[in-house]
Amino acid sequence: MLSTLIELQRLKNLGRTGWTLRGLPAGTESVAAHSFGVTVTAMMLSDELTARGTVVDMERLLRMALLHDWSEARIGDLPKTATDYIGADTRKRAELVAFDDIVGGFDAGKALYRQLYEDYEQRASLEAQLVKAADVIDLLVQVLALERGGARGLDEFWEVANEGNFELQGIAQEVVKEVLQSLLAAHAEID
Amino acid sequence: MLSTLIELQRLKNLGRTGWTLRGLPAGTESVAAHSFGVTVTAMMLSDELTARGTVVDMERLLRMALLHDWSEARIGDLPKTATDYIGADTRKRAELVAFDDIVGGFDAGKALYRQLYEDYEQRASLEAQLVKAADVIDLLVQVLALERGGARGLDEFWEVANEGNFELQGIAQEVVKEVLQSLLAAHAEID
Amino acid sequence: MLSTLIELQRLKNLGRTGWTLRGLPAGTESVAAHSFGVTVTAMMLSDELTARGTVVDMERLLRMALLHDWSEARIGDLPKTATDYIGADTRKRAELVAFDDIVGGFDAGKALYRQLYEDYEQRASLEAQLVKAADVIDLLVQVLALERGGARGLDEFWEVANEGNFELQGIAQEVVKEVLQSLLAAHAEID
Amino acid sequence: MLSTLIELQRLKNLGRTGWTLRGLPAGTESVAAHSFGVTVTAMMLSDELTARGTVVDMERLLRMALLHDWSEARIGDLPKTATDYIGADTRKRAELVAFDDIVGGFDAGKALYRQLYEDYEQRASLEAQLVKAADVIDLLVQVLALERGGARGLDEFWEVANEGNFELQGIAQEVVKEVLQSLLAAHAEID
Amino acid sequence: MLSTLIELQRLKNLGRTGWTLRGLPAGTESVAAHSFGVTVTAMMLSDELTARGTVVDMERLLRMALLHDWSEARIGDLPKTATDYIGADTRKRAELVAFDDIVGGFDAGKALYRQLYEDYEQRASLEAQLVKAADVIDLLVQVLALERGGARGLDEFWEVANEGNFELQGIAQEVVKEVLQSLLAAHAEID
Amino acid sequence: MLSTLIELQRLKNLGRTGWTLRGLPAGTESVAAHSFGVTVTAMMLSDELTARGTVVDMERLLRMALLHDWSEARIGDLPKTATDYIGADTRKRAELVAFDDIVGGFDAGKALYRQLYEDYEQRASLEAQLVKAADVIDLLVQVLALERGGARGLDEFWEVANEGNFELQGIAQEVVKEVLQSLLAAHAEID
Repeated sequence: MLSTLIELQRLKNLGRTGWTLRGLPAGTESVAAHSFGVTVTAMMLSDELTARGTVVDMERLLRMALLHDWSEARIGDLPKTATDYIGADTRKRAELVAFDDIVGGFDAGKALYRQLYEDYEQRASLEAQLVKAADVIDLLVQVLALERGGARGLDEFWEVANEGNFELQGIAQEVVKEVLQSLLAAHAEID
Repeated sequence: MLSTLIELQRLKNLGRTGWTLRGLPAGTESVAAHSFGVTVTAMMLSDELTARGTVVDMERLLRMALLHDWSEARIGDLPKTATDYIGADTRKRAELVAFDDIVGGFDAGKALYRQLYEDYEQRASLEAQLVKAADVIDLLVQVLALERGGARGLDEFWEVANEGNFELQGIAQEVVKEVLQSLLAAHAEID
Repeated sequence: MLSTLIELQRLKNLGRTGWTLRGLPAGTESVAAHSFGVTVTAMMLSDELTARGTVVDMERLLRMALLHDWSEARIGDLPKTATDYIGADTRKRAELVAFDDIVGGFDAGKALYRQLYEDYEQRASLEAQLVKAADVIDLLVQVLALERGGARGLDEFWEVANEGNFELQGIAQEVVKEVLQSLLAAHAEID
Repeated sequence: MLSTLIELQRLKNLGRTGWTLRGLPAGTESVAAHSFGVTVTAMMLSDELTARGTVVDMERLLRMALLHDWSEARIGDLPKTATDYIGADTRKRAELVAFDDIVGGFDAGKALYRQLYEDYEQRASLEAQLVKAADVIDLLVQVLALERGGARGLDEFWEVANEGNFELQGIAQEVVKEVLQSLLAAHAEID
Repeated sequence: MLSTLIELQRLKNLGRTGWTLRGLPAGTESVAAHSFGVTVTAMMLSDELTARGTVVDMERLLRMALLHDWSEARIGDLPKTATDYIGADTRKRAELVAFDDIVGGFDAGKALYRQLYEDYEQRASLEAQLVKAADVIDLLVQVLALERGGARGLDEFWEVANEGNFELQGIAQEVVKEVLQSLLAAHAEID
Repeated sequence: MLSTLIELQRLKNLGRTGWTLRGLPAGTESVAAHSFGVTVTAMMLSDELTARGTVVDMERLLRMALLHDWSEARIGDLPKTATDYIGADTRKRAELVAFDDIVGGFDAGKALYRQLYEDYEQRASLEAQLVKAADVIDLLVQVLALERGGARGLDEFWEVANEGNFELQGIAQEVVKEVLQSLLAAHAEID
């Protein structure tokens, strides 16, 4: 267990490339801090869904959110443009193998973790779709915080908020849309 | 929901005071990154327990780990010495009220979150004790990483590893002890 | 003497929480740098007062400005919101005891330092009131510098400039008001 | 020309992943600073070669050193382990296409730049081999500087110094070997 | 050779004073990263000149760009205002002697390097003038990047773009003017 | 007054070149934080002297300590090696004129400040000699803190502790010597 924990420790000091490539200070956000934000967001989205009568497998969701970026401990935080050159399939395959290697020494969890990771990549389950939505929402909350602090040049991120329904449907789609609308409204107030 | 997420976003940029007071660089570890580490560690500890036949309420555990430091968004990361002066009780009460205020606008979760937070503070349940153990283990994995990178003067942290059983019993105590032993062994190898 | 100096050294690496909680980079301002700014400001305010015929005990003032934040070496830089939860009285008492412990080993100064610290906390003397005014002015000069550099979301700080007379009277009040007016004018020019 | 310059500007703020994944502070070394070091090292190696009677095409060498990492402006600084998962060939192809896109708008240079980039990747010319040697030497000089400053856990880097002859021969091999020997000697002196 | 390389290594961690004195984060730009930018810019300017029929000694130009700031490893990055007090002549003489001392141990290059350094300081050759133009262009590309990221208060830098023709003439003047015009246009678009 | 305060504000963000040139992180210590340390140290040294029966003009001493580095707001923090090239006299003259320009707009203090600054530069008074001793002691306390944190390669700083008596005599010399001895002892304990 310890060797996996030591390796994941690296995510605390790994800055998100999206910010540094845009000239923001190196300490802006670590991958670990982002994963924390995604997991919290996924939990709150799902609690809202539950309150509105939609069943979510919470344990599954929290685990998935927690582990969805672990492969970055070996591959780094590839910028979005990197995928255009490496190819989405190659990237996914590489991340999956790296993930396996990271958890490979932990017998008590590796099978389950791998299954959750694949579930997330396929976006088939409601939980996977919610984690993806949480991934984007946490990104936008970070963008909003940076913009409120004076940062500029981050407009491209808001396009996602306008498009994406994350394959969600029904109440899940409704809840995510509400949050994105609030975010867009908060963003509009800045300038 | 959004106002809570925006407030918790602050934890990504809030450095852990323990490091800065010891002269380590400001970006060493954020509270959010630490919370990520604690939640991951709690999950892995519990998966190991499950493998050895001990039942853990995983959803409860993950939620608790995720939210145990939220009050720091309003109170900051108090150094250990601060508690000596403010008083452990005052600190706990202050953190509880701050926690309530942070989650207060989120009707779908606030009652449950508060209950989990109190559970954690009382350390009565197995889950609370495991999260506390995970809190210390993540701290020590960070200390180990810093020491491997060349940092010195962090010896006092290792005393906890020698003492604490975190009120755990049986298999839980056994598993936590094993991890602490591996950590101490890895620490001993450094110098 | 050395053990006190070593402990106060920590203030050089302790970031002011007000900035990090607002998303500004970790190295924005240390507590030591702020104390320097406050002491310089207090000196200049008092030299202006002297020039206008008001007597200030300069030695007393400089000492007081220099030591007013020493307790943060043990308690950390509590954000303003922390006081709402801990209580202003508890906070003051905690800081006083921490202060005593920090200077306790320095026989040649501890009695005087403590007396000056209490004087500052009570704001009864002209010198204490001037140091408090200097504390706010240095904060606003920092805010101005950050805003000129592009930072946003710091408007709340300017409210203090509009309210506070710091219990000052006569020429002291006049001088402080003039500086605050210049600051507000410089702030108004930014946007 | 300007759009290429703006894009390469990003390399000044892109930290080298090798350091952050090992827990070193985020500002340790940018890709641009490393490229500077490689180009300077390549120039000095070649001036030494010239002094010993070996002809080097200096213009070609300097250009090659300068541009050998440009693709990182779009792909990021992939850690070494990333190549294990993505595959060396995929990585090279991706970098080549990214390189083409970065210089694509600069008619006066793009053909030559691309040719130099491919030359570097193939390591067929003496100049390409010297740039590769300079790449490793600059890395080791950085490692040495970090170790002298107190960093630990960087031993794996020194293995390269023991192995690699970079396909160099004759006097070039001799000169590079001398520098590597000096580096190893300086490293040995630290502990 | 190694002792020179070790000394120049310092430039990777030496921040440009112009940014820190204006309140920008410490890691904004190192001297080494700036030298990389200048050399790349000089190369591209000259390739454009070549395409328009003007002959440039490229090897000379690249070497000169690479080494024009080496003296800062011993003197530091003096802010512009420092020259007003130290005197331009004193500064130049000091930098020349420091430069000599830095390269003094490298017999295979020191004579040539020194000659190139003096050539740069005298701005008599086309190459020296192009490197100076590249020095300013790289500065302005950095300013542009900072402004796009939200920084303000950097207007004074743009005045250089309006004045300076860098003693260039003919096609060289034309090319540099075009780049400066594009930069001014990009700057004008920001607000 | 405000324009002087705004200019001195820069010292909070100006890193001490001695650390960055030795590869330590950029945020290690600001000039403002160092000035705070020097002033505190000067105060404590003098309080010890007073306790042993030696009269110190405390107001004069504190003012002098506070302002002894103000010229760096315009000249930057020149590394020690810079003085070798610029010349100690040129440096002193430059700093004096820069100092005058910084305080020039503050009629209520400029004459006194200038006189104190010259007094410090001449080291004729007991107060000036104590501030110089405090300057070195604060430097060594910082070195000690860095070394305790794991930094290496700072040995040259300790030579000062062995030599310098700072032209002090009698009890002043005795007190300073005691502090330096304690520092050397603490340093010796590290390894």
